[in-house]
Amino acid sequence: MIMDHRLLLSRRARSVTESAIRQMGIVTAERADVISFAPGYPDPAVFPWEEYREIAASLFSGADGRVLQYGPTQGHRPLREWIAELQRRRGIDVAEDQILITSGSQQGLDLLGRVLIDPGDVVLVELPSYTGAISAFANAGARFVGVVQTSTGVDADDFEAQVLRLRRTGATVKFLYLVPTFQNPTGRLTSPERRRAILDRAARLDVLIVEDDPYCELYFDETLAGRRRSLKADDENGRVVYLSSFSKTLSPAHRVAWLVAPPSLVAKLDAFKQASDLCTSELEQRFVLEIGRRGRYEQRLPHLRAHYRAKRDAMLSALDARLSSELDWDVPEGGFFVWARLPQDLDARVMLDHALKAGVIYVVGSAFFVDGTGSDRIRLAFSLPTTDAIEQGVDRLAGAITALRSSPGAADRQRRRLQATAPAPHLEP
Amino acid sequence: MIMDHRLLLSRRARSVTESAIRQMGIVTAERADVISFAPGYPDPAVFPWEEYREIAASLFSGADGRVLQYGPTQGHRPLREWIAELQRRRGIDVAEDQILITSGSQQGLDLLGRVLIDPGDVVLVELPSYTGAISAFANAGARFVGVVQTSTGVDADDFEAQVLRLRRTGATVKFLYLVPTFQNPTGRLTSPERRRAILDRAARLDVLIVEDDPYCELYFDETLAGRRRSLKADDENGRVVYLSSFSKTLSPAHRVAWLVAPPSLVAKLDAFKQASDLCTSELEQRFVLEIGRRGRYEQRLPHLRAHYRAKRDAMLSALDARLSSELDWDVPEGGFFVWARLPQDLDARVMLDHALKAGVIYVVGSAFFVDGTGSDRIRLAFSLPTTDAIEQGVDRLAGAITALRSSPGAADRQRRRLQATAPAPHLEP
Repeated sequence: MIMDHRLLLSRRARSVTESAIRQMGIVTAERADVISFAPGYPDPAVFPWEEYREIAASLFSGADGRVLQYGPTQGHRPLREWIAELQRRRGIDVAEDQILITSGSQQGLDLLGRVLIDPGDVVLVELPSYTGAISAFANAGARFVGVVQTSTGVDADDFEAQVLRLRRTGATVKFLYLVPTFQNPTGRLTSPERRRAILDRAARLDVLIVEDDPYCELYFDETLAGRRRSLKADDENGRVVYLSSFSKTLSPAHRVAWLVAPPSLVAKLDAFKQASDLCTSELEQRFVLEIGRRGRYEQRLPHLRAHYRAKRDAMLSALDARLSSELDWDVPEGGFFVWARLPQDLDARVMLDHALKAGVIYVVGSAFFVDGTGSDRIRLAFSLPTTDAIEQGVDRLAGAITALRSSPGAADRQRRRLQATAPAPHLEP
Repeated sequence: MIMDHRLLLSRRARSVTESAIRQMGIVTAERADVISFAPGYPDPAVFPWEEYREIAASLFSGADGRVLQYGPTQGHRPLREWIAELQRRRGIDVAEDQILITSGSQQGLDLLGRVLIDPGDVVLVELPSYTGAISAFANAGARFVGVVQTSTGVDADDFEAQVLRLRRTGATVKFLYLVPTFQNPTGRLTSPERRRAILDRAARLDVLIVEDDPYCELYFDETLAGRRRSLKADDENGRVVYLSSFSKTLSPAHRVAWLVAPPSLVAKLDAFKQASDLCTSELEQRFVLEIGRRGRYEQRLPHLRAHYRAKRDAMLSALDARLSSELDWDVPEGGFFVWARLPQDLDARVMLDHALKAGVIYVVGSAFFVDGTGSDRIRLAFSLPTTDAIEQGVDRLAGAITALRSSPGAADRQRRRLQATAPAPHLEP
């Protein structure tokens, strides 16, 4: 008798579905003719190929057997020390015992969910917020409440109002999750004043902040360098857990990221990491460390900034030329994304079919909202395609909008169908 | 005001502690003078250094940008296809869509826990069983019940009796977790008859089996090759989930392992993996695949078997010469471990302090038992030390026993203290 595994699934597994961004990634991976603005992938043209070739010979000599061995769960200590230095240059003064190496920042988010969240606990997130964080916290049983975001960052008054309202209902608010610098998906940079205000309110309300900071090195204007100062840099009370990564500045294949937290919390996260994957690859940690030690990490950054700025400019020019009458968008000052709003009569989910037919894809805005809104928004990642492909992709997007407008009846039917089948947005981002 | 993070911890995080094996690993990493029989680490002397050097140049040429990019969560498809071939040689005939690449088998165990276990569900494990699996399933809220193990493997009658007993109490039995080939910690090889019996009972009782098989290639006698046939090879009903790894045959730094399950279960595991670490390193998957494609994986195995057999022999000779009057042990026919029993008046936990003073460590048996027993057992890993170090380590162990016998009063006091502070063994392995 064939076994029926559905009966064996945990409650969470029964409800879990695939992430919208990953689905889009799979679509593009399988169709070479599609121009993808969907996943926020870095560009292989600026991966550290040369550094890898230089370092490989010494790492693979066999002289140090530990290079290919299991390593400590918390991470290779010299790498943690180098990261501590790197962070001091970002204004964050913490010792290596407050640093946990994770297998990508996604693992850091997953571990935080498991260490901090019991089913039903509330996590506050920006409207909109990074969908990978929403998935990770949802797997631990989080309930999400959105906080309004304006062009200068998450609204401190709404943050306070939500916390007070939730506490009156008896809810446990576990933390506020933020991407204050070149946010995913909006590309927004939270202003210094707003950062200060959020930190002050969090202290007054006694709320923990989880600050996710993967894009901070990728600013497009030197005058912004000082405006990215992290919340963690001004945290004197262990109120901010900070995450950052080498996936965008070196390569995602390292699966090397880090998390900063008070030692007592690091110890708990470490225990969960042990049971999750024992350790992050010692080899990949050595690659990152060697790149750092040779001064090649800092050396790469100006080139990376220019590279992604050129792509941002290509996308903005193309949007200006082809879609200024249809779309509104913010101008991102760093990071990987343009966040655009569709005209009122268009639905980003309905439009996706037409876009795919035209050979271009994006992520539908509703993937990033925990309150069920966002189907009038699209996230356009400019990080991976060439500038030529960006222009062509925007052309195709314009074509998709034209095609959609020429079949309004079909669009209405499809929108009704989508509304009838839409999953609960707060659990399936 | 400094934030008190203890108040924010999830229920599980409050109770979780560090694994005994990892603690021992940290002790040895920090003391070069200690000979470690504790962690089951493979020997860097047989890591594929040469293969790495050969392959690095082509992988790092930059010709294929995807080598350092994010990859599909399920894993690099050509690697899954190669693993499907490898498995056919192990008698397991499944297509690549039933294979999920994981970041070490530890991640496979963690994902299985999250997809299958709700708090309070029962997982059946061997007495003794692999502590990393116990930790992973415990993090999902599993309750453990042990099944008696004899020298030929887990007892099929006891398995059936436990399932029937548990079901009478209303408990949900989620699966039986087994390491049938060169088990961790006992080194035992489950007999073909016993494998057949377990599979038959599981079918009759409708119980899922999770078969963890990291050591199957590391047998010490060619006549054993046929006796390792996995339970999965005879599974016609999707009753067995199978895990295996390259950590012991290539290198743990790859963090590349795999899991075989029906496609519907793979889809759920994939969704949890997405939110856990997005994907396993594409680079490390390419290294494994290239080693496989060049025929170097199969080529390495006879050498590995001879290498670890020589270490096993060194340990058995030393034990025969120095400790035959004190210890009993099984002769392992493969894998990394000798499992030994102390005389009745000695406690492995008390002895550990004396062993550490003498400059040798092991893992206390109780780490592997979910029923609170095992303090009369020790696990001695012979995989990492040189044959000289193995002899010297056994000498030191003999010295520790002598030292312990000369201070029986102290040992009694310490045992009483240990009993007073021992954590609940079924949750803190």
